[in-house]
Parts: sequence; C-alpha cells; structure tokens
Amino acid sequence: MSEQPRHPGRPDPAMTTEWLRGAGHESDVVMSSRVRLARNLAGAAFVNRASRPERMKVLESCRSQLERAPIGPTVSWHDLHRTPSNERTLLVERHLISQQHARGKQANQTGGPDEPRGVAITFPDERISVMVNEEDHLRIQSISSGLDLARTLAAAEAVDDALESGLNFAFSPRFGYLTACPTNVGTGLRLSVMLHLPGLRLIGNIDKVKLAAKDMSLAVRGFYGEGSEAIGDFYQISNQTTLGKPERVLLHELESEILPRVIEYERAARQMLLTKRRYHFEDAVHRAMGVLCHARLMTTEESMQHLSLVRVGVVTGMIGHLKHEEVNHLMLLTQPGHLQLLAGRELNQDERRLARAELLRTRLTPRK
Amino acid sequence: MSEQPRHPGRPDPAMTTEWLRGAGHESDVVMSSRVRLARNLAGAAFVNRASRPERMKVLESCRSQLERAPIGPTVSWHDLHRTPSNERTLLVERHLISQQHARGKQANQTGGPDEPRGVAITFPDERISVMVNEEDHLRIQSISSGLDLARTLAAAEAVDDALESGLNFAFSPRFGYLTACPTNVGTGLRLSVMLHLPGLRLIGNIDKVKLAAKDMSLAVRGFYGEGSEAIGDFYQISNQTTLGKPERVLLHELESEILPRVIEYERAARQMLLTKRRYHFEDAVHRAMGVLCHARLMTTEESMQHLSLVRVGVVTGMIGHLKHEEVNHLMLLTQPGHLQLLAGRELNQDERRLARAELLRTRLTPRK
Repeated sequence: MSEQPRHPGRPDPAMTTEWLRGAGHESDVVMSSRVRLARNLAGAAFVNRASRPERMKVLESCRSQLERAPIGPTVSWHDLHRTPSNERTLLVERHLISQQHARGKQANQTGGPDEPRGVAITFPDERISVMVNEEDHLRIQSISSGLDLARTLAAAEAVDDALESGLNFAFSPRFGYLTACPTNVGTGLRLSVMLHLPGLRLIGNIDKVKLAAKDMSLAVRGFYGEGSEAIGDFYQISNQTTLGKPERVLLHELESEILPRVIEYERAARQMLLTKRRYHFEDAVHRAMGVLCHARLMTTEESMQHLSLVRVGVVTGMIGHLKHEEVNHLMLLTQPGHLQLLAGRELNQDERRLARAELLRTRLTPRK
Repeated sequence: MSEQPRHPGRPDPAMTTEWLRGAGHESDVVMSSRVRLARNLAGAAFVNRASRPERMKVLESCRSQLERAPIGPTVSWHDLHRTPSNERTLLVERHLISQQHARGKQANQTGGPDEPRGVAITFPDERISVMVNEEDHLRIQSISSGLDLARTLAAAEAVDDALESGLNFAFSPRFGYLTACPTNVGTGLRLSVMLHLPGLRLIGNIDKVKLAAKDMSLAVRGFYGEGSEAIGDFYQISNQTTLGKPERVLLHELESEILPRVIEYERAARQMLLTKRRYHFEDAVHRAMGVLCHARLMTTEESMQHLSLVRVGVVTGMIGHLKHEEVNHLMLLTQPGHLQLLAGRELNQDERRLARAELLRTRLTPRK
C-alpha cells in the first residue's frame, strides 16, 4: 500500500471527490459517470429477509473478502451501524453511500441505524465504494468525472471479479445475477450519468428530454438519485433494463447513441442563449453570482440553483475568475453535513444558512 | 442675478435635485417636505372650462408677472407646449411638474400636449416651481429636503405674495381661494412629505400606517403622487382638508403631531429588525446590493425596490462605502427620462434596462 497524506478513516470535507472533479470527457455538460453492480451471496437470505445474525454473517464474509482482495491501494472501511449520523450524512453527500444505506432502512421500512452494514471506499480518490447490506448484500459502485462509462464499468467489473474470487454469488443460468428487487435481476447493472442541463431548463425544454428518456426506458432522477428532486439543473439519467441485454449493449446505447444527443441538445441551448438571448442569459448568471457573493442567509436548494448558473457562466466564459471545479466543490461543501464538519460542531438550520452564505461569499467574491 | 455655471434652460440629468439631497431634519426617514398652493386668476375661466385663447392669455399674464417678480435669482421658464416629450418626462421625474401637466391633459381628459401651459423653476436648486395652466391657473410648489414644512410653507407664501402683487386671485370672503376642484377650495394648500418606510414594510406594518393616516383624513400616495403606486417603500403623506382650517393649524398637526409619531414608528421597526432579526435584515439589504451590483438588465420598479433596501442599509450603517444622497440620486438617474438624456438618445425598453443595470453597477460597486 502506498503512503497517503491523510487518515483514511474519515472522508475529509475540505477535499473534493471524484465525481465533482470537473475533469474528463464532455465535462461542460457531464458531471460524472457511475456504474453500479448488485450482487448477493448464494445460500444467504436477501437483506430484507435476513435475521440480524444472518446479516452480521454476510457483513463479516464480505468484509474479509474485501480485505483479502482490496479494491484499491488504500481503503477505508466504515461499520455504518457504529458511525455517527453526521459522518453518514457526509458519505451520502459525497455519493459514497445511498440515503437508504445511511439510515439502515430497507425499502419496506424495516431496519434502522443499528442494522449491521458497512461500506469500503478507496482513499483518497473515492472512485470505488462497495456497500454491504444495502438492498443487496453487495453494491459495487465505480464513479468517474466526465463521460467515461466504459472505463468506469471496467473498474467495477475488476472489483466484481476480485470479490467473486472468494465469494459465491447467487446466479441463475436462466436469469443471471439474482437481486432483492426484480428490476435489477440479470446483469445487476445500473449505468448512470449526472448531467448539468441549465441551458435546456432556461429555454424550457427539460420536459422534452425527460419524455424522450422515458420513451427509451431510461430513468431520470435528481441530484441524490432515486426519489430526489432535480436541484441545480442536475439530472441523473440511467438504464432501467437489466434483464436480456448484455452489459456492452446497454453501455453502447447510452454512451454512444443517447448521451451524445442530449449533450449536443444542451450545448445548442447554451449557444442559442449566448447568441439570441445573450443579455438575459448574462443577467441570470450574474444575478446568481451577485446573490451568492452578498447574501447573509442561504438554503441548500437556493445555493445549488445559483451555483448551477454560475457553473454554466464559468463554462461559457462569462465568469473569468473561477474554475468550474471550484464551483463543483462548493456544491459539496455547502451541503449540511459538510458544513457542520467544516464548522467542527452541529449547527441548527439558521446557523447552517449563515455559515453557508459566509462560505459562498468568501470563496466566490473575486479577490481584490 | 448671480452667475450660474450651467445653462438654466434645461435641468441637468447629472445633477441631483433638492428633494433628493438627503439633508435636513429626520432625513433617515423623511426624504422631502413639499408645499403646494393652488391659485386662479379672478375673471378668467378655470383651465378645464377655458378656450385656447383664454388659456393663452392666462399663460401670458402669469409669465409676465413671474418675470416682474421672479421666484429666485435664476429662473428657467419652459413653454411645455413647445417642450419635447423626453424633457417633459425629465421634469416629471424631478417632481417639478405633475404627470398631468406633462401630458397637458385635464382630469376630464380634455386637452393634450399642445395646450398652452408652462412652468417656472428656480435654478439650479429646483426648490420652487410654478406651474401655469395645470388644473388651476397657478400651482406654486416649494420643496425642501428632510422634514421642514414651516420653512417650505414660508417660501411658497413668499412666492404667493410676489405673484399676488401683480395678479388678482379669485378669492371668496366666505370660502377663501377658489379652485377648479372643490377639494382645494379655502387655503388651496397641500402639505406633503415623502417618507421612506422600509422598516414598516419589512415587519408588515405598512397597512396600519395607511389606516391611521386615513383616520386622520390624510392621503397616502406613491412616489409620483396622485394615482401612483408606492414603489421602493416611499409614501407621500398629505392633508386632504383645505377648507375651515388655517394653514398654521394644518401645519402644526402634521409636522408636530402626526409625522413625529410615524417617524418614531419607522425607527422602532428598524431597531427591532437590527436587534431581533439582524441576519434577515442584513440578508435583505445585502441581497439587494448584490443584485444591483451584478444584474445586466433592470426595470425601474425593481431598481427602486433594491435601492430602497440599500438606502436603509446605508442609513443603519450596514453599508459603509456609500452615502444616502448617492443612493437618492440613483433613484433619479435610473428613471427612464434621465437615463435617455444621460445616453444622449432615445432608448427602447431593452436598452433602458441594459443602461440602467450598467449605471447601477458602475455607481454602486465598491472601488477596489
């Protein structure tokens, strides 16, 4: 293992994370590419059917295999049933675990914060995380900045192979990988990309994209995945089919056919705004900047909405003194968990709004 | 006559005007004090009943008396039936003539822009103006910065005396001065003050002030007088009674009894905001400043609303780099007529919004 400068036991709120790095292909529109593989251990009950001792046993088997076949040079492990709530919130905000996994609750509302479960995360890049005892025994997540589904899938498959070398996965020759929810049976694969579509929202064409995605059996979700609202013009587009289509077909459809069209559609919207509605576009972007640089109280939602406009202002060259990765990073830092860990204490809602506004002012105001 | 540096023929849009000077008593709350006297010539039909030749004759009589007994050391005279529309707009924005006088229309919608009518204005202070052939043959206006009704009335009465020395005013021993509208019969006097009440609006108590004023037979009007909306938290409070009460009684009631209470009420609201809702108050003020310093397009109404908050921010010490007279002056400069005269050409609505936003940014952004 290589030496790392920081303690791997806890993600550092001051550090950015892979999916917000702002690098990679098409990063003016695509924030990140994410691959998830759902796997379960043969001969063990699914999580929502398992007793506590059974879950504990699954947790131990998975953890010891993760130690035998580590997912990266430095890996942090979190027993989530022993992790304080604010640190679990931090992991959710960094998209390393799901909200469901943070709460320890199953979709049927059984379980709770002390359910035996955990997550392994590569440190410090946070590109790979493996949740144990979420909805499935294992959820392998691989994430990359920009549009890069093929390499992201390859990274997830390498982890899958490493885990399978010591674990016996539930697999049916007829159906493929078996999963707790039938929608994931087959490949157990979800490919998703987080898109930033402020141009399409400003010209009023977001609903067309949603409808087109639906026609192609794609799901459109918000910033925090399933059940979350689109905030700050961020949309996650992902496949819904996992049965009957091989991985490479799913991947090709999404990465080479569908996404390039959405990306071009967003770029055309931005170009139209820049040429035909330039003053209105600049006005919207600079007002967002004005509010962020001057407000004294700020909610998460409002902040995300303004940062979205600032981000497109940076990408289109209207705002010169910032880089879009700085804007991305602020989207993370202004989340409640991050704010509180930066402050070093719990903050009530008013204190968070005050601290968020101050952080934004300090980071965004051009230095004199 | 004293030498004046500028041509008195046309008010200079770059210069401020008396009522926006930001000086005088209670200027944290009271923008200006205004006195108006309505007078008519005996033996001549009221303006809305007079033929064009009759109106022309009234105009000539009044103008020659204004020349014999000038209202100030330097006086500019404007034949409004020969004045271009944009210059008339400028005079309205500077509160030197009424909207009705600019249009040349009577309340009954007779008349039009070529009706013979005019205005004499003291230059460069613009403290006195005398409209000829508005609703009455003569409307004498005296205006001062801050709360100063007694001296403002004295100045109007001096003009009244000077005019009466050469003109025969319609006067009834029983009713007093006769006027075109019965509501002005008697003293022909209207006393009014322009108040800035952002504190009361922010705590939701403006309607209480309006109701109390109504109970005391006072009229509450907007920034541009009769029929205009309150914009930017500015309210004109004035007497409605002109019959049966001597001038000094009206004046004492308003200046010594009613207004001190409204002023204290507004100050208490600001104090409450500063102590109990400090962050929300600061947030509102600084957001207004942020939008003004960053927006690329701005309407008059939005600009007035933000400038109102900036003004209270300056007065309460939240904003250090501006004086409240600078903010007052911007309220004038951002009006459509002023903007166009500053630009030196007619501007369409989009161009005005663009020019207004640019002017505000340039004047309000702290110099580095």
